Amino acid sequence: MRIVALAGGIGGARFLRGLKDVVSPEDEITVIGNTGDDIHLFGLKVCPDLDTVMYTLGGGIHEEQGWGRADETWSIKAEMKEYGVGPEWFGLGDRDFATHLVRSQMLTAGYSLSQVTEALCVRWQPGVRLLPMSDDRVETHVRITDADGTRAIHFQEYWVRLHAAVDAEAIIPVGADTAKPAPGVLEAIAAADVILLPPSNPVVSIGTILAVPGIRQAVSQASAPVVGLSPIIGGAPVRGMADKVLAAVGVEATADAVALNYGGRAAQRAGSDEGGAGRAAGLLDGWLVDTADQDAVAAVEAAGIRCRAVPLLMTDAEATAAMARAALELAEQVRV
Amino acid sequence: MRIVALAGGIGGARFLRGLKDVVSPEDEITVIGNTGDDIHLFGLKVCPDLDTVMYTLGGGIHEEQGWGRADETWSIKAEMKEYGVGPEWFGLGDRDFATHLVRSQMLTAGYSLSQVTEALCVRWQPGVRLLPMSDDRVETHVRITDADGTRAIHFQEYWVRLHAAVDAEAIIPVGADTAKPAPGVLEAIAAADVILLPPSNPVVSIGTILAVPGIRQAVSQASAPVVGLSPIIGGAPVRGMADKVLAAVGVEATADAVALNYGGRAAQRAGSDEGGAGRAAGLLDGWLVDTADQDAVAAVEAAGIRCRAVPLLMTDAEATAAMARAALELAEQVRV
Repeated sequence: MRIVALAGGIGGARFLRGLKDVVSPEDEITVIGNTGDDIHLFGLKVCPDLDTVMYTLGGGIHEEQGWGRADETWSIKAEMKEYGVGPEWFGLGDRDFATHLVRSQMLTAGYSLSQVTEALCVRWQPGVRLLPMSDDRVETHVRITDADGTRAIHFQEYWVRLHAAVDAEAIIPVGADTAKPAPGVLEAIAAADVILLPPSNPVVSIGTILAVPGIRQAVSQASAPVVGLSPIIGGAPVRGMADKVLAAVGVEATADAVALNYGGRAAQRAGSDEGGAGRAAGLLDGWLVDTADQDAVAAVEAAGIRCRAVPLLMTDAEATAAMARAALELAEQVRV
Repeated sequence: MRIVALAGGIGGARFLRGLKDVVSPEDEITVIGNTGDDIHLFGLKVCPDLDTVMYTLGGGIHEEQGWGRADETWSIKAEMKEYGVGPEWFGLGDRDFATHLVRSQMLTAGYSLSQVTEALCVRWQPGVRLLPMSDDRVETHVRITDADGTRAIHFQEYWVRLHAAVDAEAIIPVGADTAKPAPGVLEAIAAADVILLPPSNPVVSIGTILAVPGIRQAVSQASAPVVGLSPIIGGAPVRGMADKVLAAVGVEATADAVALNYGGRAAQRAGSDEGGAGRAAGLLDGWLVDTADQDAVAAVEAAGIRCRAVPLLMTDAEATAAMARAALELAEQVRV
């Protein structure tokens, strides 16, 4: 079975680990990773989401933190402070720096981000095929208004430095409109037997991947069933501050509103084939909400999306594996 | 008093620390540092000699080792080994990496090496004005012949990886012929009250600085007395493998041969003013040899270079300060 998953950082990575636990050895998992939160720091290219997936699946992640490396040291950060060179608010440990050094050196030498990611994975052996959504530079910016006026700042500055404490007025995936899907992305989607949308941030993770021209349409038109998992439980994001960026795109932070924002494929199939593609193309055949959101099921099903309520907290490996199993089961149920 | 010193790495840096101990607070020391052993590693610009001077005078050096940082950690080196990314033979600790990251980021942003060095020194406060010999890229290569044939390799590969175990057939300061002295270098030499050549490697440290067009001539024509200290004691280099690179330029590893290779300024003054400039211009007014090399004094003096035998082992701060004092005293004696 060929499974394709779109993934952001921590939530996506943890779900993928559960997915690996429930598939057969002969199954193939292709992960299309968000690169919209990539950032250049200290002259290096940092890809937080790709690295979180790689470290998590490769056994190098800092478990409690969810990002960065286990057994990390922080000498460079201390030195940068002495040099007065920032930003201070982004945590890059020494081991993590090594990854960014290797990546940046390869990019400067002319390799694409896909090639670099493949090379890094030779070490990490994540057990999945990890593809960046695009080899082109895409950077998610967030428009805010504060004492300094209205301006767009890098998503990482919004998320990590400001802790999303200011309202996000708009989410702008700079460069996405001219980016091309990385080699293999559209092919993997077209050839998939199952497509999964893990409980990653629907706006700045999955949403950014879908903003690369061609990807949303490919998912919408794929022959495989598409099943997603709600990152919202009981009206609040499980982790992170997804409600802030959902508000920026006018979507309520509820399990059903997120599903309706992705859109159902059945409605699309029922309607005209013409003009339905592009940004508004429906994506979902199935949607998992948490048992706390039993009330949301009806609204989701009314949109033609098969919906099940199951426990969606990734409290441990078993709970996470059960979520992955539920997603694969739902995929079989909605397979046409 | 304005003192100018040409300096390589460990030997030069330690001598400069002794020099700082004996001068008055109102004296100004300008150090012209060798950049010929600079190397690009992991996509970063590494300046081993400038950093050794900066760390040594700024209190951050690893004392026993003589290079690199105190309280260093080695996470990146361990990670690079896991990634299979070399070279393994060059020791860059995590703290040291921070310096190279700041430097490389500033160079990429368009600052010159002089400007970057000045910025790094804002933190280190070395108590001297540290100037790179040139802002242009110069890299010392060494021609060798081994099982792989005859070829030129980077000086660091010869020195650090091969430990100079193979004969050096030629020393090639690649880029030196078109390099320009860094801003302030010629001005400092012209305005100096004393010019010192510390016991640095006469070929790959001092020699490379002198290979930048204009610097040798400026020293030769300076109004200040020029005094050097022998890096050779009892026919052997005090530290390092200077004999190997001296052989490559046809100079014996003796205290007097090194002095004669620098050349005396008196002989030049006595001769024609025309045609004496350029590469062969004599440099020295005075030369210190170790007490073990008492025999060398006569030969050096015969070349018109005032020579004294004093202890030249930098065994501790006091011994080093005494060497600096002896050099400054000799400078006063030879002042015309």
